[in-house]
Amino acid sequence: MTQAVRHDSMRARNLELVLGEVSRRGPLTRAALAELTGLTKSTVSKLVGDLLDAGLLAETGPARAGERGRPGVEVVLSGGRVASLGLEVNVDYLAVCLLDLARTVRFTKRRERDNRGSRPAIVVRELEKLATEALGEASALGLTVAGAVLAVSGPVGDGVVFSAPNLGWRDVRAAEMLRLPVPVDLDNEANLGALGQLWFGTGGDDFLYVSGEVGIGAGLVVGGSLFRGAHGLAGELGHVVVSPSGPPCRCGAAGCLETYAGQEALLAAADVRSVPDLLVALESGANTAIEACTAAGEALGHALASAVNLLDLDHIVLGGIFAALFPWLAPAAEPVLAARLGRLRGSVPTLTASTLRGDAATLGAAGRTIHRILGDPGPFLSRADG
Amino acid sequence: MTQAVRHDSMRARNLELVLGEVSRRGPLTRAALAELTGLTKSTVSKLVGDLLDAGLLAETGPARAGERGRPGVEVVLSGGRVASLGLEVNVDYLAVCLLDLARTVRFTKRRERDNRGSRPAIVVRELEKLATEALGEASALGLTVAGAVLAVSGPVGDGVVFSAPNLGWRDVRAAEMLRLPVPVDLDNEANLGALGQLWFGTGGDDFLYVSGEVGIGAGLVVGGSLFRGAHGLAGELGHVVVSPSGPPCRCGAAGCLETYAGQEALLAAADVRSVPDLLVALESGANTAIEACTAAGEALGHALASAVNLLDLDHIVLGGIFAALFPWLAPAAEPVLAARLGRLRGSVPTLTASTLRGDAATLGAAGRTIHRILGDPGPFLSRADG
Repeated sequence: MTQAVRHDSMRARNLELVLGEVSRRGPLTRAALAELTGLTKSTVSKLVGDLLDAGLLAETGPARAGERGRPGVEVVLSGGRVASLGLEVNVDYLAVCLLDLARTVRFTKRRERDNRGSRPAIVVRELEKLATEALGEASALGLTVAGAVLAVSGPVGDGVVFSAPNLGWRDVRAAEMLRLPVPVDLDNEANLGALGQLWFGTGGDDFLYVSGEVGIGAGLVVGGSLFRGAHGLAGELGHVVVSPSGPPCRCGAAGCLETYAGQEALLAAADVRSVPDLLVALESGANTAIEACTAAGEALGHALASAVNLLDLDHIVLGGIFAALFPWLAPAAEPVLAARLGRLRGSVPTLTASTLRGDAATLGAAGRTIHRILGDPGPFLSRADG
Repeated sequence: MTQAVRHDSMRARNLELVLGEVSRRGPLTRAALAELTGLTKSTVSKLVGDLLDAGLLAETGPARAGERGRPGVEVVLSGGRVASLGLEVNVDYLAVCLLDLARTVRFTKRRERDNRGSRPAIVVRELEKLATEALGEASALGLTVAGAVLAVSGPVGDGVVFSAPNLGWRDVRAAEMLRLPVPVDLDNEANLGALGQLWFGTGGDDFLYVSGEVGIGAGLVVGGSLFRGAHGLAGELGHVVVSPSGPPCRCGAAGCLETYAGQEALLAAADVRSVPDLLVALESGANTAIEACTAAGEALGHALASAVNLLDLDHIVLGGIFAALFPWLAPAAEPVLAARLGRLRGSVPTLTASTLRGDAATLGAAGRTIHRILGDPGPFLSRADG
C-alpha cells in the first residue's frame, strides 16, 4: 500500500515535471526532456506516451501511424483535447472565454447587460446561456472542458460572494447556482485579472494589477504568485481612503477611491452616459471630460501611493476601463505618486496600461483551470483512463 | 564529493529537525525525539550529543559526569552558551537587548537620547557603547554572542538605511559603521517589532503590528512569516494618506498618517512636551490631551481601514507609544474601522495593545539571530568544533 502510494506520488511529480518543462519552454524532444528533468529516457517515453494518450501533449511535425516517438520528433502542449471556461459577471456585462490547454483562446462572447440590483438567480441564468454556448462550441471543436472559474467583482471566499455592493449582492453562492455539466469555482474579478495579466500580459512577476470598472479592485502578484491575504479579500483598492470627508460610498464609508474614480463617478463628472461616449469626448478634447479624468487620476495617485507604502510595489498595471483611459489618467496620477513617494523610496513605481483591456479577468479565470491541470495532471489522466 | 555534500545536507536537515522539535515543544527525551522526527534512536543520540557539545541543547535534571543520555533524561534548548544582541536606534532613544538561545532576556539597556539630525557616526558610536556593555555582560555570563541585528526606523535594505526622515538620515550604511566583534545585520524597526510580537507577544500567526513612535511603521505577519514586499519596504503605514489636503509631512508629501498620529504631532496637539507628560494629562482627564488622542485615533482608523482593504487583516496590534496610549486611541479608531469596513467585510478587525510596549523591536532583532541558529545550526556547530 505504502509502495503503491509512493509510486503514484512519484509518477504525479514526474508527470508535472515533464508537462511543466514543455509548458515553459515550448517544443522539446524526449531526449531533451530526459536531460532537463534528470529522468531516464525510458521513464520520459512512458510519461510522454501517457500524456499523449490523455490529449495533454501532441507531437509536432507530420504524424504517421505506428511511428510515435521517432528521434527528433518534438512534443508540445496539445490544444486539441482539453479546455477550460472563464466566466465573468460584471456590473455592465457578462462574459465567457474558452481556452485550450495550449493557452489559445478558442471562443469568447461578451454581452452588455445592466446587472445593477438584478436578482442573482436571473443573472446566473443569463450567464448559463453564454456558458452553454461556449460548451457547445467546445464540443464542436472536439474539446473536453475540464472546469470553469467564475469571476465576480467584490470580496469572495469559499464559493460565496460576500458582498458586491455595485451588483447589490450579499452572501450569494454564485458558483453553486450555475447549473453546468462541469465543476465551477468562484474567485474575485481583480484577483483573476491579475492572474490574466501574469499569464497573458506583460507585467513580469511582481506587480499590482488594478481593475477599473464600476468597482475598483486590485490583485497583488509577488514572485509570480497572487497575495490573497487572510481570507482572500486582499486588494480592495476601491475602498482605500482618498479623503475621509469625501462623497458617500455604496460600501457605507465616505471618500473611498471608487467615489472619485469608479466608472459611475467618472461618467457623472464628465457628464456623459457611457465609456465609449467618454472616450469620444476625451479624444475631441472636451474640457469637462478631461477634468473628470484628471481628478480621477489624482485620486488614483493618492490611493496607489498608500498601496505602494504598504505593499512595496515597483510596477502598477492599469486594467479594465483604466487601460483605455490611461492617456488621460496616468498624467494626473504620476505626479501624485512622485510627490508622495519620491523622497521616501528614492524611486517611483511605473504605471502601465494592460494590453488585455477588459479581458484580463476571463482569461485569468480560464487560465486557473489550465494551470491546475498543468500543475497536477495525474487526476486528469486517471479520468481520461476511466 | 557528492556523497559528502549529501551527507552534510542530510545532517544539517536532521540537526534542524531535532532542534526545531525541542524549540517548539520544550523538554523531550531522546526516545520522544526519535518518534517525533522519524529518525533512529542512534541517529538522534549522535545529533543530540553534538548539540549538547555545541552548547545549543542542555540536559534537564541533575547531571552526573559520564552519565549523559540516561533513559528519562530530557533535553531542552540551552540558555547557557549561545546568545544574540538586538540593537535599536530610534528618534528618542538607543536600546540594546541580550537574548540567550532559550529566549530568555539576560540584559537590556535603554538610553533616552534625541537623535534628530544627529550625524550617523556619532549615533553609532553611542550605540557601540551600549552594545559593548551588553557584550561584556554576555562574557561575564559565559555566553558567546553569535550575532547582532540593528533596528532602525525607516526603509532599510541590503545593509543601507535608505531614508529615515525623522532622524535626517539618507543612504546610511549603519550596520557596517558599527565596530563590534560580532556580525551585524540591519532591519526595519517595525518589521523587527512584528517579529518580536510574533515570537514574544500574543498576536497569533496573522496580524499587522503597528509601531507608533516619532515615525509610524508596520510589519505584516501572514502565516507566521513577515511579508516584506519587493524590496523589504512594505508596511510604511505612517505615510498612508489620511487626507491629501492635510498637513505637510517630513517625507515631502501631505496628510500622511504621521502628521496626525506621529509622536510629535500628538504632543503638539496635546500641548505637552513628552509621552510621560501626555499620559499624566490623559489620566487626569485633560481635555486637550484627550481630544488630541481622539483625533489621532480617528486618523489611525482611516489609515488602518486602507491597510485592511489592501491586506485583508483580522487582527491589528498597536505597539510602541500606541500601546501605552491604547485606552485613548482605540475608542476613536474602532468606530472608524467599523464604519469603513463593516458592510463590505462582514466583520471588523480587532485592535489590541502589544504587551511588549517599546521592547518589541529589540526583542525581534535579537530573536532573528536565535531563529537563524535554530533553523540552521550546522555552521554554528562547525564553528564550535573549530
